[in-house]
Amino acid sequence: MDIVSERDALIALAHCVEPGDAAAGRLLARQGAVELVRRITDGHTGLRHGDGLAARLAGFDVHEAAERADRCGARIITRGDREWPTQINALGDQTPLALWVTGAADLRLLALRSLAVVGARACTAYGEEVARSWSADLASAQWCVLSGAAYGIDAAAHRGALAADGTTVAVLAGGVDVPYPRAHTALLAQIADQGLVISETPPGESVRRQRFLSRNRIIAALGRATLVIEAAVRSGTASTAHAAAAMNRPVLAVPGPVTSAASAGCHRMISDGDAILVGDVSELLDLLDLGSGLPPRAGDRTARDALGARERVVLDALPARGAIGLDALVRSAGLGAGDVMAAVGVLGAQGLVVEEAGGWRLPPRPRA
Amino acid sequence: MDIVSERDALIALAHCVEPGDAAAGRLLARQGAVELVRRITDGHTGLRHGDGLAARLAGFDVHEAAERADRCGARIITRGDREWPTQINALGDQTPLALWVTGAADLRLLALRSLAVVGARACTAYGEEVARSWSADLASAQWCVLSGAAYGIDAAAHRGALAADGTTVAVLAGGVDVPYPRAHTALLAQIADQGLVISETPPGESVRRQRFLSRNRIIAALGRATLVIEAAVRSGTASTAHAAAAMNRPVLAVPGPVTSAASAGCHRMISDGDAILVGDVSELLDLLDLGSGLPPRAGDRTARDALGARERVVLDALPARGAIGLDALVRSAGLGAGDVMAAVGVLGAQGLVVEEAGGWRLPPRPRA
Repeated sequence: MDIVSERDALIALAHCVEPGDAAAGRLLARQGAVELVRRITDGHTGLRHGDGLAARLAGFDVHEAAERADRCGARIITRGDREWPTQINALGDQTPLALWVTGAADLRLLALRSLAVVGARACTAYGEEVARSWSADLASAQWCVLSGAAYGIDAAAHRGALAADGTTVAVLAGGVDVPYPRAHTALLAQIADQGLVISETPPGESVRRQRFLSRNRIIAALGRATLVIEAAVRSGTASTAHAAAAMNRPVLAVPGPVTSAASAGCHRMISDGDAILVGDVSELLDLLDLGSGLPPRAGDRTARDALGARERVVLDALPARGAIGLDALVRSAGLGAGDVMAAVGVLGAQGLVVEEAGGWRLPPRPRA
Repeated sequence: MDIVSERDALIALAHCVEPGDAAAGRLLARQGAVELVRRITDGHTGLRHGDGLAARLAGFDVHEAAERADRCGARIITRGDREWPTQINALGDQTPLALWVTGAADLRLLALRSLAVVGARACTAYGEEVARSWSADLASAQWCVLSGAAYGIDAAAHRGALAADGTTVAVLAGGVDVPYPRAHTALLAQIADQGLVISETPPGESVRRQRFLSRNRIIAALGRATLVIEAAVRSGTASTAHAAAAMNRPVLAVPGPVTSAASAGCHRMISDGDAILVGDVSELLDLLDLGSGLPPRAGDRTARDALGARERVVLDALPARGAIGLDALVRSAGLGAGDVMAAVGVLGAQGLVVEEAGGWRLPPRPRA
């Protein structure tokens, strides 16, 4: 073992430390990944199951890990990487060590304009319909729908976003090459095709009970807010909502019939003041809009902050309403046509600009 | 015209001043009813339509009014009377001048443990079922259901209370002898039989648009809180809720499917912070229970405050759980058997004590 880079060390740790292990996270924050790897190898961490960690680490090979990721079409990103979604660091000592990502989109940019949509596996037809149609509207408004690919609300949310040709991110509790549940194999393939399938566990790893809880925290941390559509009073969905609230992420809940147990958890969160009631999707979009009444997140970066200077100039040159042609945009931005074309390409990929016959415009903000 | 008592003068004014006339209310507060009657007669009020008021007053006869009330089985109560529900004075300058009451129950005591249940006339089957079943549960828990006898939620609320052998009060916008809507003639007769039908307009008066608004304020003022079950975004129900909020009465709202326009007003009130979401009836009863988290009303009297000393002693002598027989209650209260029997009679009529085989107990507080 000769791990010398922080990146390789983080990937090594992701192969031996269980997701969400806060004790390891604290050591990592103090010592750095390379040093933590060294101490685990030497048996000097004081961590429980230190021997197990050392044994797993001994079996780790950085090249093999990279090849394994390659074979399942995944890339590995860690804290220092450009694609790392910085808001996930709000998880503190439970921040993932690495993320395996499949799909062409950029996780960091998607996450900047994303909403976690979560809810009961045993949902009703009502909840499924709300999840599907609201997610389609979110996707049409260039919001990325984050969820867990489970049965029920999760699947309906992903499907709604896909049906609207939007982007959606599935966060798995096992490896990105281990479709779970199995019945969603085709759905996950489509999500990877149009969006991303990601996981903090290495390829080949199976799901475990504890990993679902850690996965739920990731969903909450990636989303600008968490929308709960149907939840029983005590449920896994409630754990995602609590995680979001603990990170000062707004929790929004959809009401339903008081005669439906599937909505009782949403009602409880609202009446306890733990969630904001959202009664229609235009209200939801108003809440989510940048510059809205949503409390800003500490250290939050907006999609605009993440842009290069050229893209910012072009974005600012776009009219508030209506479309603009290439010549007018070149004049308005004061850049060459090549730079403008390159910039609208980048902006378009992030949903910040929409191409129309004869030009470009800012994306619409649908209202009721 | 020789009106010398405040009571007669208030009844006279109730025959000529339109319900909710705040200008007349201000003069009344300053001058008293006898003096206001004199000034209207002399044309010295400065009120708009003063001539019309004087003409109507000239046609008023106090004995005729009493006979007219008698003929339709109504009694007239005014501000000074023992049966006057004092919390209605929260309406300030718009406090009714008099109330016509039909039915055997005591309005003041019913109002002390009453909830306004209001909602859309054009309600859905869902709203109707919630109104019916929750009102039945409220009635079983000795709460009096107040409503307006309209189509939809109002009628379902009254019917639910009646079906549970509870008391319910219908507040009409026209005279108590003018069933409105006509299709509810039998329902109103049953309400008067088991509870009360009341109005601030004299017998024979028809409903008018403005009188519905004034009536809605009375419903809100009489109730300890107002429960809204289904309401469109802008609606008469919203006016009742606003009136309740303006008097610092809690407004509670029942959520429903976000796909139902009939629930959109409830959702709006909740997300705007104008109403508290109530997701089930046991939660509602918890909120309503005396000593609960409901904010107290300024100058509010509890049902207990309205009791005589003998009744209070007996009420305090009842065990927190289970029933108590006469002998034990006599010992516990330290009163004679005759006084105890009389007291439990009074307490039972107000729903504060329930008779059981072999004794009495405090009414149950149902929980989920």
